[in-house]
Amino acid sequence: MGIEIERRFLVRGDGWRAAVTCARRLYQGYLAREDGVAVRLRVADGDAVLTIKGPGGMARPEYEYAVPLAEAEEMLGTLCAGRRIVKTRHDVAHGGLIWEVDVFEGPLAGLVIAEVELDDAAQSPDLPPWIGREVTGDPRYANAALASAAAPPRG
Amino acid sequence: MGIEIERRFLVRGDGWRAAVTCARRLYQGYLAREDGVAVRLRVADGDAVLTIKGPGGMARPEYEYAVPLAEAEEMLGTLCAGRRIVKTRHDVAHGGLIWEVDVFEGPLAGLVIAEVELDDAAQSPDLPPWIGREVTGDPRYANAALASAAAPPRG
Repeated sequence: MGIEIERRFLVRGDGWRAAVTCARRLYQGYLAREDGVAVRLRVADGDAVLTIKGPGGMARPEYEYAVPLAEAEEMLGTLCAGRRIVKTRHDVAHGGLIWEVDVFEGPLAGLVIAEVELDDAAQSPDLPPWIGREVTGDPRYANAALASAAAPPRG
Repeated sequence: MGIEIERRFLVRGDGWRAAVTCARRLYQGYLAREDGVAVRLRVADGDAVLTIKGPGGMARPEYEYAVPLAEAEEMLGTLCAGRRIVKTRHDVAHGGLIWEVDVFEGPLAGLVIAEVELDDAAQSPDLPPWIGREVTGDPRYANAALASAAAPPRG
């Protein structure tokens, strides 16, 4: 098992775009969600990964397994219907860390969320100037919720 | 994807025991269940498999992936708490097919269910004399439901 320690923030403006080092489109869907456990499929750059996340706020248990691309795409199209997200993830270097800025599409267009993975929960990352309100642990902004709920406030 | 075509029945008496060719204890738990999709972990004989089943009655889409045993046991102990089943599965040959007779333990003790996998839904298997009421498609007897619901009638 890994433990994913992550803080999440809304993003203000486009100041982050100048520092993007990499961008990739992510197609993800949730097979099922129950009692804080989420089973997610993600397809990006021709690879497919099944991820199991446990309950938690900033720190969550996480297990990841590669799955065949064709089967993942089939499941995304069928078993994940109504529980899908498409977003473009941008890597942005700041203060020695890589921030991931996710620009959502479709019904979530206009929503931009920045995530940063930390080595431990006590670590205090330098916040870039384009960072807005923190949404770590806010269930409305969890990807598993965004995949099927009404869109939450953007700012 | 595979399609699992299966009929399921309650079992009457012990007449099947004389024809058992193999028995193995199955530890299984559900990571999450949503809209007819169930994500199951099963550990048996030192192997662990993650299975995704889609909605359906007699025929359900099914995807299976091997996962590391230690991780599966960890998830069974944590993420599947409250959604677990232990049962002993017996292979019983009858009429050219292998019937799987599951004897449940714990809160489901006394429940015995026989399953038979078919090549197509129109196939009409010869029913052994110890077969009781059919529960194919009855949501109360789905393993995903048995893992956390109150025990259903045994007969």
